[in-house]
Amino acid sequence: MDQDQKQQILNRLNIIEGHIRGVKRMVEEDAYCIDVLNQTRAIAQALVKLDALILNRHLHSCVITAIRSEDVGERERVIAELMQVFERIH
Amino acid sequence: MDQDQKQQILNRLNIIEGHIRGVKRMVEEDAYCIDVLNQTRAIAQALVKLDALILNRHLHSCVITAIRSEDVGERERVIAELMQVFERIH
Amino acid sequence: MDQDQKQQILNRLNIIEGHIRGVKRMVEEDAYCIDVLNQTRAIAQALVKLDALILNRHLHSCVITAIRSEDVGERERVIAELMQVFERIH
Amino acid sequence: MDQDQKQQILNRLNIIEGHIRGVKRMVEEDAYCIDVLNQTRAIAQALVKLDALILNRHLHSCVITAIRSEDVGERERVIAELMQVFERIH
Repeated sequence: MDQDQKQQILNRLNIIEGHIRGVKRMVEEDAYCIDVLNQTRAIAQALVKLDALILNRHLHSCVITAIRSEDVGERERVIAELMQVFERIH
Repeated sequence: MDQDQKQQILNRLNIIEGHIRGVKRMVEEDAYCIDVLNQTRAIAQALVKLDALILNRHLHSCVITAIRSEDVGERERVIAELMQVFERIH
Repeated sequence: MDQDQKQQILNRLNIIEGHIRGVKRMVEEDAYCIDVLNQTRAIAQALVKLDALILNRHLHSCVITAIRSEDVGERERVIAELMQVFERIH
Repeated sequence: MDQDQKQQILNRLNIIEGHIRGVKRMVEEDAYCIDVLNQTRAIAQALVKLDALILNRHLHSCVITAIRSEDVGERERVIAELMQVFERIH
């Protein structure tokens, strides 16, 4: 992964971490349940966007390299991993 | 929300925050994309379990109170909120 | 459930059934995989909208009746069912 | 897609179609909302398994062919499509 992409992913993780701390403050101050749920759902969506960034990078690097190699085992390995990502999302 | 439930929710938020910091270290140390995705999916599942805890609490307190009240507007409000939670999950 | 709502739900189920038959024709005619996936995802979204309709109806009928009754066991039963719906969605 | 895989996908679509008809009967006979929701969620899960089958096939055929070709535009196209599948799932 190049430095820019790495920094972009770290920035998003920092924002998500700050968001979690915000939810902790809401709970400590007895915020309304539904308002808390709205924030946790927003964090879940931010995680999905982070995953899309990581997956896009993965497809453009490791997956292309493995599929273009002559090593059939390598190809099968990256495809099996993609299927696991797909299944874990649901 | 009683103090025990509040503390349980805060404990889970602390665990999720620690998990996010762990993912940051993985990215800094150039961990394999798929390993990072496995961790972010585990965090997403921990958020869903946290949501279930908050929702269960909400149903047993605010929802029961509102539905048992004679204020039809209040009843409609809590039901509309539940529908929003349901729709936001997908 | 009143007759209008019942008919609305049946109409949606008929539309979904027709959509499934459309996907079968696509597969028989060797349509491109991604085009088939786009259709199956559209069906999944139609199912979610159908679920929202059924759940909204359920909240306004059975849930209100059970929570307003004096039978605590009944209240607990409808809340436990709602939690199962929530958990099954993910 | 070879004939066996095509038949496997068509069989699953037939099962899903039958399942939809079963839900229609339940609604016509005024089944309990939660029982209907359990069946629609089971259909949604059957659709996800069908998608996994189609996606796995797609990765082993079109994606490998496109990525191993010398046409960079083709590679980008299949990767963009995979990202759309990923994003549509959520």
